[in-house]
Amino acid sequence: QTSITVQGAVDVFAGSLKNSGDTARRAVVNSGGMTTSYFGFKGSEDLGGGLKADFALNGFYQADTGTSGRFGGDNLFSRDANVGLSGSFGKIQFGRGLAPSFLPAVLFNPFGDSFTFSPLVVHTYVPSGAFGARSWIAANASDSGWSNEIIYSTPDLNGLRANLHYQFGEVAGRTGTNNIALNLLYSKGPLGLSAYYHDAEVSNPNAGGALIDPTAAPVNYRAITRQKAYFAGASYNFNVAKLFATYQVNDNDTATALSMKGKTFSLGMSAPLGQGSVLLGYANTKRDGSLIGSDIKRDTLSVGYDYLMSKRTDLYTVLMSDKITGASRAASFGIGVRHRF
Amino acid sequence: QTSITVQGAVDVFAGSLKNSGDTARRAVVNSGGMTTSYFGFKGSEDLGGGLKADFALNGFYQADTGTSGRFGGDNLFSRDANVGLSGSFGKIQFGRGLAPSFLPAVLFNPFGDSFTFSPLVVHTYVPSGAFGARSWIAANASDSGWSNEIIYSTPDLNGLRANLHYQFGEVAGRTGTNNIALNLLYSKGPLGLSAYYHDAEVSNPNAGGALIDPTAAPVNYRAITRQKAYFAGASYNFNVAKLFATYQVNDNDTATALSMKGKTFSLGMSAPLGQGSVLLGYANTKRDGSLIGSDIKRDTLSVGYDYLMSKRTDLYTVLMSDKITGASRAASFGIGVRHRF
Amino acid sequence: QTSITVQGAVDVFAGSLKNSGDTARRAVVNSGGMTTSYFGFKGSEDLGGGLKADFALNGFYQADTGTSGRFGGDNLFSRDANVGLSGSFGKIQFGRGLAPSFLPAVLFNPFGDSFTFSPLVVHTYVPSGAFGARSWIAANASDSGWSNEIIYSTPDLNGLRANLHYQFGEVAGRTGTNNIALNLLYSKGPLGLSAYYHDAEVSNPNAGGALIDPTAAPVNYRAITRQKAYFAGASYNFNVAKLFATYQVNDNDTATALSMKGKTFSLGMSAPLGQGSVLLGYANTKRDGSLIGSDIKRDTLSVGYDYLMSKRTDLYTVLMSDKITGASRAASFGIGVRHRF
Repeated sequence: QTSITVQGAVDVFAGSLKNSGDTARRAVVNSGGMTTSYFGFKGSEDLGGGLKADFALNGFYQADTGTSGRFGGDNLFSRDANVGLSGSFGKIQFGRGLAPSFLPAVLFNPFGDSFTFSPLVVHTYVPSGAFGARSWIAANASDSGWSNEIIYSTPDLNGLRANLHYQFGEVAGRTGTNNIALNLLYSKGPLGLSAYYHDAEVSNPNAGGALIDPTAAPVNYRAITRQKAYFAGASYNFNVAKLFATYQVNDNDTATALSMKGKTFSLGMSAPLGQGSVLLGYANTKRDGSLIGSDIKRDTLSVGYDYLMSKRTDLYTVLMSDKITGASRAASFGIGVRHRF
Repeated sequence: QTSITVQGAVDVFAGSLKNSGDTARRAVVNSGGMTTSYFGFKGSEDLGGGLKADFALNGFYQADTGTSGRFGGDNLFSRDANVGLSGSFGKIQFGRGLAPSFLPAVLFNPFGDSFTFSPLVVHTYVPSGAFGARSWIAANASDSGWSNEIIYSTPDLNGLRANLHYQFGEVAGRTGTNNIALNLLYSKGPLGLSAYYHDAEVSNPNAGGALIDPTAAPVNYRAITRQKAYFAGASYNFNVAKLFATYQVNDNDTATALSMKGKTFSLGMSAPLGQGSVLLGYANTKRDGSLIGSDIKRDTLSVGYDYLMSKRTDLYTVLMSDKITGASRAASFGIGVRHRF
Repeated sequence: QTSITVQGAVDVFAGSLKNSGDTARRAVVNSGGMTTSYFGFKGSEDLGGGLKADFALNGFYQADTGTSGRFGGDNLFSRDANVGLSGSFGKIQFGRGLAPSFLPAVLFNPFGDSFTFSPLVVHTYVPSGAFGARSWIAANASDSGWSNEIIYSTPDLNGLRANLHYQFGEVAGRTGTNNIALNLLYSKGPLGLSAYYHDAEVSNPNAGGALIDPTAAPVNYRAITRQKAYFAGASYNFNVAKLFATYQVNDNDTATALSMKGKTFSLGMSAPLGQGSVLLGYANTKRDGSLIGSDIKRDTLSVGYDYLMSKRTDLYTVLMSDKITGASRAASFGIGVRHRF
């Protein structure tokens, strides 16, 4: 038998939500104000000779209703379902795991992986509006996790780790349709740097879906079949405050001449105050191209306070202001508790 | 890391089932003769200063087939998906958790939470007949668990605990549609008392469904949009036997002038015998009102024996007799094993 | 509280797959090259007097995508959801558990429970071709696990164990439609023997489905309503190699005069080499009968090497060659890692 860890997070907040473009305000008890709630198992085995095997099985759930997954139709273990071997050569991992865009996005903004309140994450991964008729689609194609994936990670090279991601498209008779990416993460003293490039042609968590979003009207986002993305991010910890900045380009192509390009930059700050931190985040996206006709802009600002009751439990409150071209500015508010186990 | 408990129950029985109104008898191996089978995780963290954080993630499953949930379309963690903070002020809990009607019902009848054989629970929570064409609908609206819920529980006040339940309706633009309830539980020496009131307008486990049942014919139960319920229960342990009695009123309203009122009383006894207990339970419901036209009555009697192999494992056998107005009296029988882990 | 074990397996491989009859080759990262990936919980309680209670809750998942189950619509705990009592009388188990055909098949071929590369298991349990239009249907009816099941197992009788399997059909008003089986497993020194008989009329994992496969064209396999199966297997460990042989007859009946009979034999060898074993497996099936008209034959040969990194972690590579009447011979290849936890 082995040492298996049961782990996860329960994150629930009460609030009032309205993103720009939403038709109405909603009073909610919702899941994932700061971290997408998840549960799962992980374990590690020492194989001798410096070799190690490990696995992770993690699934998202909605802590307000107990529903499995991040959305209807998500997979049970869509956060992690993988096995890896590591040694002096680095690590190789098989299965479903992180998309290359995930860690650069969540490590280089002060609201981490908040799919509700982090301006950068909201722009990058979260659609607004009803399914099939979005007022906003995610900037990043192909989800925050990749299925059918092989990741090779280098060992730590004086603070630098590089990860090569490859997702098999599994399309019968077409071995050329795949997702491929390289990401870099550097951390040394107060300085953090990150960059990634991905070339995505395969939908997630399951193949056969729309690459970004199935929305067909008023803009035919469903037509997007390929995305190349370029990202650079930096953080510096001045102790009185940690500052964050990111810049990314999402270049979307279709089977026809139509295309769309998005450019997102974000700025952030996390400043210790009392037994917690003041958080400030801003993201700004501009999209243009023949697919959408007129340009679309969005800017989102969040300010919050995260109070640490312990290393594993915190209380948070966030106020977010959001504006998309053609829709009114809208504000959201939440107060919640996050418990890691 | 923390002390997380993996917990649950496996309850399987073999039997022959026919409720009054069922078209045919079925020989079965079924799940949940005494307790709805479930599995899950819970944990607790000492935050210091008398404060504590805890969480629970529990899902039902059917131990005869391995199916998730209590029924098709149920949520993975529909039993519990919540996080709470407790201290001298009592406890506040966020997420999906108990409905206010659950503990009063299952603590004040000798068959506990048996959704198969407890007369009170069967009347209160379990429909009879095919989906959409019931011969019986549950007396209680809005499920035995509530989603999007905040519960405030008082500390123990000399044997009395009060719980205030509030479920957000999460209807966009309509903050007035919610579920709200107060329940009271008192226990001191041989005496137990309980009461609750709820005002329910929101379906569970997910919003947007029928409040009680989607059945539209021969009676349009689907039209019920609001229920107020009133409950009082008592138990007294005479040592030779513990006696139970409950009374409840379920007042159902629709968007039109149609309405239905149900009144349920139950009596029960649990008497130690050998390494177990003889169980005797009876429930009687009468419904009237313009929604149903003619009155509907149901009475159900169960007699059983629960044999304790250990604190965690018991064998049980139950015989149940059931009669609904307009249908023949029918009997069910089961013999099973329940194992808590 | 009790000692509960969290357990499972993560098995992922990269490969190129084409079974005979498949329209195209697919490059994949897939789950379950050697063992169907699963996760779950088990526990045991000493009841005193030689009695023991135990339970198992295990679910399959696809480690390449994180999807629950072996296929869409599979049950969460379709591997195991059962509780048992054991003592000197043997063991009685209730719930969902093994089909009687499973252990004889997987213990008597060198590729174990590989639903991808074991010739015997592929012939016996795995369909080829698109859902509803198979180029191959499984030889065995009614799944590798049975729901609504009672299993009585004898104690170990000098190396012999016998298991009586009974699955309730749960068809209202028809108590005569059930699955019933006897299997025998013998192990003593280098010799292993096995046999089973089943008479299957009920689909799995859920009732109401096709007994073997819903395919209606070009052959109406959906019409099969009953199957009797007979199996005998033997293994002998010569130390330089362990040899395996099995023979089975699957006799399928329909509600009309149409019928189909299948005969499958398999041969296998597992030979230690270095820190692992060379595996060689062959299966040959011939089907005839009025249901299919012309005879159908299939033969499949696999050769592989399984390298043990530890008792719990191994690397494997397999090459499989497959031929079904009327389709071209096709080859599959995979290299993977399996980690048990």
